[in-house]
Amino acid sequence: MLHKVGVTHSLAHLVVTTRWEDIPDPVRHQAKRSFMNFFAVALAGCRTDAIEIALRSLMEFSGGRQATVVGRSERLDALSAAFLNAAAANVQDFCDTHVRTVIHPTAPVAPAVLALAELRPVSGRDLLLAFVLGQEVQARIALAVSPGHYNRGWHITSTCGVFGAAAAAGKLLALDETKLVWAIGSAATQSSGLCESLGTASKCANVGNSARNGLWSALLAEKGFDGPPEPLAGVQGFYSATGEPPNLALVTAGLGESWELMATSYKPYPCGFVIHPVLDCVLDWRRDNPKAVVEKVVVRGNPLLAARTDRPNVSTGRESQVSVQHAAAAAIVTGKAGVDQFTDACVRDPAVLALRRKVSVERDAAFSTVAAAVDVVTADGKTHSLAQTAARGSDGNPMSDGDLEDKLRTCAAGWNPRHDISPLIDAVWALDKSADVSMLAAMAVPRA
Amino acid sequence: MLHKVGVTHSLAHLVVTTRWEDIPDPVRHQAKRSFMNFFAVALAGCRTDAIEIALRSLMEFSGGRQATVVGRSERLDALSAAFLNAAAANVQDFCDTHVRTVIHPTAPVAPAVLALAELRPVSGRDLLLAFVLGQEVQARIALAVSPGHYNRGWHITSTCGVFGAAAAAGKLLALDETKLVWAIGSAATQSSGLCESLGTASKCANVGNSARNGLWSALLAEKGFDGPPEPLAGVQGFYSATGEPPNLALVTAGLGESWELMATSYKPYPCGFVIHPVLDCVLDWRRDNPKAVVEKVVVRGNPLLAARTDRPNVSTGRESQVSVQHAAAAAIVTGKAGVDQFTDACVRDPAVLALRRKVSVERDAAFSTVAAAVDVVTADGKTHSLAQTAARGSDGNPMSDGDLEDKLRTCAAGWNPRHDISPLIDAVWALDKSADVSMLAAMAVPRA
Repeated sequence: MLHKVGVTHSLAHLVVTTRWEDIPDPVRHQAKRSFMNFFAVALAGCRTDAIEIALRSLMEFSGGRQATVVGRSERLDALSAAFLNAAAANVQDFCDTHVRTVIHPTAPVAPAVLALAELRPVSGRDLLLAFVLGQEVQARIALAVSPGHYNRGWHITSTCGVFGAAAAAGKLLALDETKLVWAIGSAATQSSGLCESLGTASKCANVGNSARNGLWSALLAEKGFDGPPEPLAGVQGFYSATGEPPNLALVTAGLGESWELMATSYKPYPCGFVIHPVLDCVLDWRRDNPKAVVEKVVVRGNPLLAARTDRPNVSTGRESQVSVQHAAAAAIVTGKAGVDQFTDACVRDPAVLALRRKVSVERDAAFSTVAAAVDVVTADGKTHSLAQTAARGSDGNPMSDGDLEDKLRTCAAGWNPRHDISPLIDAVWALDKSADVSMLAAMAVPRA
Repeated sequence: MLHKVGVTHSLAHLVVTTRWEDIPDPVRHQAKRSFMNFFAVALAGCRTDAIEIALRSLMEFSGGRQATVVGRSERLDALSAAFLNAAAANVQDFCDTHVRTVIHPTAPVAPAVLALAELRPVSGRDLLLAFVLGQEVQARIALAVSPGHYNRGWHITSTCGVFGAAAAAGKLLALDETKLVWAIGSAATQSSGLCESLGTASKCANVGNSARNGLWSALLAEKGFDGPPEPLAGVQGFYSATGEPPNLALVTAGLGESWELMATSYKPYPCGFVIHPVLDCVLDWRRDNPKAVVEKVVVRGNPLLAARTDRPNVSTGRESQVSVQHAAAAAIVTGKAGVDQFTDACVRDPAVLALRRKVSVERDAAFSTVAAAVDVVTADGKTHSLAQTAARGSDGNPMSDGDLEDKLRTCAAGWNPRHDISPLIDAVWALDKSADVSMLAAMAVPRA
């Protein structure tokens, strides 16, 4: 009887009993925004080396051509497609963030439900509802152990994302409460992912497995694969093993009354968040001053900006994502700050390299982490003083629906300029009216 | 440069540089014994409900018929076959034990190398060498955090077994040291498995994934999928995240000079180890007294025996594995203590049920955990006093080669009485003379 009131059962109860009618309009809309952002970042990531390797490997073992790999003509079994789409969405560090937990919340969940929607009939409302519930479950489980869980080395996007994928897939499979607890149990015992792997290809295994194994956990539960009654808070369960004493009240307090999906923020630039207000400044300025010759750039920001990104010398695209000098220089030289500005090639670009040396960064505790000021000194001797108080994409200045559309268009064009992405954009905004979403992911594949 | 002397690199160096000639004869022979025991327990497990469900699910996603599932006519892709064979070997709690870590060490490793041997040409010596090295790597990594790692909830067979599978597969793929470190890194970031899942189907995901993901980590590394330089002892690596401060000296001290495989013990009975000396007593007595009518059984043993197994009332086969009353009664009634004696059906058997009520257990600290005494009172009023000082399968009384052959024969016959297992037994003993072991696992499948 004790288990009936355990936290796992509370989460399962929420998932099983919540209906589309229970989800407020802003939450429904935010779910669509998350799918829009998901397709953008998966298209940005689907051409990276790590994804190429994982795809080639999985193709040797995958059966059938059940499900879409975003941006790719190859089709794979549903589990492998979920793996690859999740890994691709996260690999460029361009995806969304649940700020309080630092989970990148869509990458584990959207690929699981999209793959399942290619196996079974799923309506747009079912897809969005399952997605919202997956978001809630993973965020709640993570909130109870944040920030300690991440700090000790757990890549929370994958260790908790697997629960979101299991819950969302379990909702689409219409599991009852007992089977949903089993699904969460199989997810718990497959939860994995180390922060030590960040910056390497092996990170893809973290996020990929969270979607794959979450989806599989729900499919196994449907067939009767049982698990323990309290996999999260049990004596030798998830919380005990992973080592951070949980605040279980955060798992259940106000469950179903508020929605953690609303705390998601989206990134306009594929680089460290603290660099974003700097990029806002220089991109706006460059748009208005396309021909000005820059002699010097002085950046001022919260001490965290310098602590994390004062890296005047970087040699790879990956490193450049945490270099304010590179980011500012590349943005001024190219007028952009997209995936192409954080590649090995851009790091070696002579014009970027030359300007990078002229960028300095100063610490000023008067700035918040989403604010910055930039002085741009041009060849004519003028100093242009720029400032941003709330970076685009931060809570105070969220990306608009149009911004998200533009992000998707840019990411799609970067992979294949002939890819007409408008049908996908329209389909995402109309998701709640779709009777069958089995073709949604396929719109994210360029025609041959 | 610091990373060059890290523990991960030390393990990779051992794996890459050790040759067949470096493995002493007793270790080579023990490796064969472990394969013999593996096939026995996988045949015992391959017909359980949990394995049936996992098999049916994986068949929906698996491509090709690359690799054998022990005891089954179905063939699967190599990753899925590794998963199922590992899960089947461990599901009945009948497999081997590395006592100091309580790892069940063969289940994660043998399925990984057997599946790989159906993809690429592998000789018997290569198979045994890779297996020995996989055993060493997983045991060393586990010794550094035992017993705390298991006690907090980590199912060490899977959390550390994934390293054994990665190392063994990496050896067969002839990875260099850099790529072997990557393989260990991808294994580390996929390491998972909670003790909370023990006793449920979800345990199968732990051990199954350890073999699958270890094998996959090596295959990914071969293709260039990189990982961090020190995935084990890095600041946010395996040891930090899993929470137990490691004694790193235990990972590397005397590496290559002694072999942890020699510390493996094999189980004659599929039940809790503390019950084993009791079963030795009553089985020997029953063999000599096949017709005696038993009125009362009094068991004396180490206090741990009563603490863990004094369960006069059990209702499932799973529970019966930790009931000394059931085990003794079933052994006396049937004259056996194999898989069939720990089923739901045997628990409900009226004769077993009747005798179970007449078994009592007493605590006596004078006994070690591998010793026990049993008084059997028969209908003629006689008391037969039996004793075992070192249970069969314990360090002081290891199972003989013949015992292991018998165990394999019994398990094979239990699944399919017409399955001629002799060719497999001969092939295991002759492994070091085989130029190609691709057909080995298929001998563990009954002919149609």
